[in-house]
Amino acid sequence: VKSSQRILVINPNSNETITQGLDEALEPLRFPNGPEIVCHTLSEGPLGIETQEHVELVTLPLRRLVIASHEVDAFVIACYSDPGIHACREVTTKPVFGINEAAVLTALARGERFGVIAIGQGSIRRHLRYLRQLGLEARLANERSLDMSVAETASGAHTLERMVEAGRELTQRDGADVVIMGCAGMARYRRALERELGVPVIEPTQAAVTMAVGTVVVARATSP
Amino acid sequence: VKSSQRILVINPNSNETITQGLDEALEPLRFPNGPEIVCHTLSEGPLGIETQEHVELVTLPLRRLVIASHEVDAFVIACYSDPGIHACREVTTKPVFGINEAAVLTALARGERFGVIAIGQGSIRRHLRYLRQLGLEARLANERSLDMSVAETASGAHTLERMVEAGRELTQRDGADVVIMGCAGMARYRRALERELGVPVIEPTQAAVTMAVGTVVVARATSP
Amino acid sequence: VKSSQRILVINPNSNETITQGLDEALEPLRFPNGPEIVCHTLSEGPLGIETQEHVELVTLPLRRLVIASHEVDAFVIACYSDPGIHACREVTTKPVFGINEAAVLTALARGERFGVIAIGQGSIRRHLRYLRQLGLEARLANERSLDMSVAETASGAHTLERMVEAGRELTQRDGADVVIMGCAGMARYRRALERELGVPVIEPTQAAVTMAVGTVVVARATSP
Amino acid sequence: VKSSQRILVINPNSNETITQGLDEALEPLRFPNGPEIVCHTLSEGPLGIETQEHVELVTLPLRRLVIASHEVDAFVIACYSDPGIHACREVTTKPVFGINEAAVLTALARGERFGVIAIGQGSIRRHLRYLRQLGLEARLANERSLDMSVAETASGAHTLERMVEAGRELTQRDGADVVIMGCAGMARYRRALERELGVPVIEPTQAAVTMAVGTVVVARATSP
Amino acid sequence: VKSSQRILVINPNSNETITQGLDEALEPLRFPNGPEIVCHTLSEGPLGIETQEHVELVTLPLRRLVIASHEVDAFVIACYSDPGIHACREVTTKPVFGINEAAVLTALARGERFGVIAIGQGSIRRHLRYLRQLGLEARLANERSLDMSVAETASGAHTLERMVEAGRELTQRDGADVVIMGCAGMARYRRALERELGVPVIEPTQAAVTMAVGTVVVARATSP
Amino acid sequence: VKSSQRILVINPNSNETITQGLDEALEPLRFPNGPEIVCHTLSEGPLGIETQEHVELVTLPLRRLVIASHEVDAFVIACYSDPGIHACREVTTKPVFGINEAAVLTALARGERFGVIAIGQGSIRRHLRYLRQLGLEARLANERSLDMSVAETASGAHTLERMVEAGRELTQRDGADVVIMGCAGMARYRRALERELGVPVIEPTQAAVTMAVGTVVVARATSP
Repeated sequence: VKSSQRILVINPNSNETITQGLDEALEPLRFPNGPEIVCHTLSEGPLGIETQEHVELVTLPLRRLVIASHEVDAFVIACYSDPGIHACREVTTKPVFGINEAAVLTALARGERFGVIAIGQGSIRRHLRYLRQLGLEARLANERSLDMSVAETASGAHTLERMVEAGRELTQRDGADVVIMGCAGMARYRRALERELGVPVIEPTQAAVTMAVGTVVVARATSP
Repeated sequence: VKSSQRILVINPNSNETITQGLDEALEPLRFPNGPEIVCHTLSEGPLGIETQEHVELVTLPLRRLVIASHEVDAFVIACYSDPGIHACREVTTKPVFGINEAAVLTALARGERFGVIAIGQGSIRRHLRYLRQLGLEARLANERSLDMSVAETASGAHTLERMVEAGRELTQRDGADVVIMGCAGMARYRRALERELGVPVIEPTQAAVTMAVGTVVVARATSP
Repeated sequence: VKSSQRILVINPNSNETITQGLDEALEPLRFPNGPEIVCHTLSEGPLGIETQEHVELVTLPLRRLVIASHEVDAFVIACYSDPGIHACREVTTKPVFGINEAAVLTALARGERFGVIAIGQGSIRRHLRYLRQLGLEARLANERSLDMSVAETASGAHTLERMVEAGRELTQRDGADVVIMGCAGMARYRRALERELGVPVIEPTQAAVTMAVGTVVVARATSP
Repeated sequence: VKSSQRILVINPNSNETITQGLDEALEPLRFPNGPEIVCHTLSEGPLGIETQEHVELVTLPLRRLVIASHEVDAFVIACYSDPGIHACREVTTKPVFGINEAAVLTALARGERFGVIAIGQGSIRRHLRYLRQLGLEARLANERSLDMSVAETASGAHTLERMVEAGRELTQRDGADVVIMGCAGMARYRRALERELGVPVIEPTQAAVTMAVGTVVVARATSP
Repeated sequence: VKSSQRILVINPNSNETITQGLDEALEPLRFPNGPEIVCHTLSEGPLGIETQEHVELVTLPLRRLVIASHEVDAFVIACYSDPGIHACREVTTKPVFGINEAAVLTALARGERFGVIAIGQGSIRRHLRYLRQLGLEARLANERSLDMSVAETASGAHTLERMVEAGRELTQRDGADVVIMGCAGMARYRRALERELGVPVIEPTQAAVTMAVGTVVVARATSP
Repeated sequence: VKSSQRILVINPNSNETITQGLDEALEPLRFPNGPEIVCHTLSEGPLGIETQEHVELVTLPLRRLVIASHEVDAFVIACYSDPGIHACREVTTKPVFGINEAAVLTALARGERFGVIAIGQGSIRRHLRYLRQLGLEARLANERSLDMSVAETASGAHTLERMVEAGRELTQRDGADVVIMGCAGMARYRRALERELGVPVIEPTQAAVTMAVGTVVVARATSP
């Protein structure tokens, strides 16, 4: 029988290619009797989320989407800025996972100190601020940037190469023993990066959807 | 086809009833094409793990078991003291999850401040020390005890009732908005407790096995 | 001569009465040759800002207002949730002050441990999260709520009375030796509250505009 | 009409040239109807405050001066070591501001991470200890020294040049996005330094007197 | 042979009775071939050190005494406010121990969370500020006051009784499992208090002199 | 008369040469009327303690030894990993000191920021985890490794030379002003290292036994 549970993974930018990439990256988390995992493009979103403005642009659309989504058991906001996470949590009793938060929490179970690979330098300050908000900065090794635009990473020519370079600085210079890919939509590089670096590499959307799957399936259990 | 992946969940005490309880609690995390989840009783373990001595007694047996378990993709140590976790991580490149660690990390994705229900007062100091070691104390609301022995909780007469009482103090007095069951083998009360408290309740073994499932299945993905 | 400098104080809700209250509260910070202090009502704002949704509703309108305001030397966002502060800072090199941030920073110069009086219980969790983001939680004594709605505080019948009660719990039970009014638009009670409590009471809009005045006037100085 | 309010800015060293420099630096904070800002040289002070001994030498003289100064509404101790601040606060209910404390608090409103420029290496350890005492170390980027004596900075030949060098290391290497001049009496370089570094530069005496002005003028407001 | 090493324990107040009490309390730390332990009354000191002013009054006299004391291998400043500790450390390469610092450090080796018994409420804020300066606040359970004057504690009628009461609140309510006597000169109650409370009780002068003895005697060892 | 008090210093590895080294290093802490200091080799221990496995191997033997040692007033576990410290504390009301813990606590009384010299890179992560557990990481400057095996350090050819190198990096690059020898059994190099580095050098076994001596002798004092 098909599961009647559903996890809605929302790509807050309007780039369908990224949504499709998410969809493929989540394939391993689909099980015959597990929750359905639906990836959805936020049509109101900008093409990419690279600034605080982009973050703010999607907050209320995300919230409206959460309000309008009745047949959903858990939400995942699939952007490493975790946009609108608190605005969404305010309107539902269903769990809402942010991929940055989930990635850091998962990394903390896999290593002593975590490193983060950001796409551009400009995001690092925002990420650190968020990490402090989460109270999770104690075991950060460092965050380093690819110094690429989202468009350049998408073209892909040198993306993996740059990721390996940044990852090596994190592990060899900064002491990270687990590395987070600080961006949605890069899942296809996860294993190659892990192989090159020799430490666990966390893909944030997979981390968040894993938590979502676990949360919804254990809620099925009967209880006295 | 049967999955060729396997998660070994080790009950470090020698109480088969608890292992059986774990096994039932993990049923929702078993999927036809998902990893096999095998619960194993550590035969060398004491009947319960309530003191630092009990913790130490199982450390090396756990480590030997990890070394001897070749057909395993991830390990879960199913005792809230996370005994032997670092000794085990030292001998394998496979992920080793502790249920205390996983429960706290999962709780941090579900609420702003977490409370913990311990069985006995005597464990709280040990748990706080461990939380500090993890660098995760910033959002602890409080830990409160049932003031019961493991044996009493097993008989079950008033266990749920006491859990609800402790949980209410955590949510109403200490400001917790998510509660962790600070003990393995209580999964059968999770939903009732959640219903009574009106906040998410995290069962630690389920939290750890969720992380284990996600970790092993994403490793299946092909990669450039 | 009239100063050519201007500080724009934005009330992010559309309640003109509150804007008028801010305007009066800032009268002492107006000096003949000091910067002009202009209070502006955000017409797109909701009537009050009590939830995360309200916060998000005003973020982009605030940002647009900042972009459109060319003859301004510093901005103050006069809502204790500091809505849109990072989105605004991204689009201007002019200083942007949030009243929550400024109030906490000012309180830290006046006492060893600060207490905060919130209007409703529901805001406290949000404020604590923000305080952690600022890295300023080390000297928080406690935050306590009036358990009133914004409307009730406006009617004013028992507002001061409740503030004194909450303030006394903060000073006598929680050890605060400086108290912040955790809301814009209450300035008229500041002195009475200070007199009753016997410790400094910080009004957040005054705190932020003070910083804004100092920042813009020292920029006038000539330099080698 | 002349304001009846007065802020006493005390230069704890006996160097009149520095007091005169403070006086000029504070000119922008003098308003026709604002509080009078009086700069006073502590005659008992040493010629400069560069060691812990110098700090201790002025503590009790500062305290006696505060006790003896009846027509004062707020005090500012204009030395970056904040000497005697707690001894002075003990003997008056009037606000007493330290310029180090005020500078850090002001910097925290202007950037994500602050850097400090010290005159000599020997002060850095003392400043860090003080920052920890204030509970404000979370957002320190770094403190770097000019490696000059107070006398050398006064001669001025290369002072600005060295400040720009140190400031660039703070912003480019350590990630500071706001810089504090860790010394009284350097105000004349503030704007040039700010222009060179491209980030806000905080002059500590101006920061403290700004807080003092705001504090005393809001106390004028009538109250129910 | 008589040891040629000497530890100078300075009572910064001018009360000879207290110096005599210190002298007796240190008797157990005198060994035939151990360092000589000399207790010295600071003649310039006030009769007791209960305020910040008292602290400041003794700072420079302590420093002068340290400078003038040539035949000394280590100094102990025997007042729980650790007055002048940094001013003294600046003028000697010999170790200078503060009894507050040493007591906290020693307590951290004896329990998981420490409580402090202060004589008066007024000292607690100062002690907490100092603890933060030391970076040692993470394991503080609480500090509670006897609400007595130094004179009252000296008369002794109810001193032990009140100490037991305060100590019980620390252990039973605040979770302390080690208690510090937050005052010099109470050593005669240490064992009785320890017996009553059932947890280790640290007497600060003994803690500091212990560290001093260890430091000087290991320096005797020959070296390649 | 011979003291009836005894401190048992346990070398948890089975290397008698190290025990003998400890014994010599503790000679300065032996006083005619002081407690007897007995060094004991744990016969069940491995030849060296370099991994988490080695740590776990000795935990229960240490605990059994503590249980069986009736004529002992304080225990010192003389291995920088502080193996079994909590398991031992659980079975005795006598003080149990770990040398890592005691060394850090002692260093904090001697400098503003401490550095640690580890033998191998592999131990650093474990030491940092432990430091976080102790809540004592705030003033760590850095930990650096000799990159030697325990065997190599024992042969001694270049040990001191490497220690000086590592120590200089700690003091000159990382800002340490006190250095801990992060290993038992190196006491013979302490003074030479201290002379070379010009900052205090803490030998951990001496630090722990100092605390033990102080603790047991003050317990002799009579009490009302």
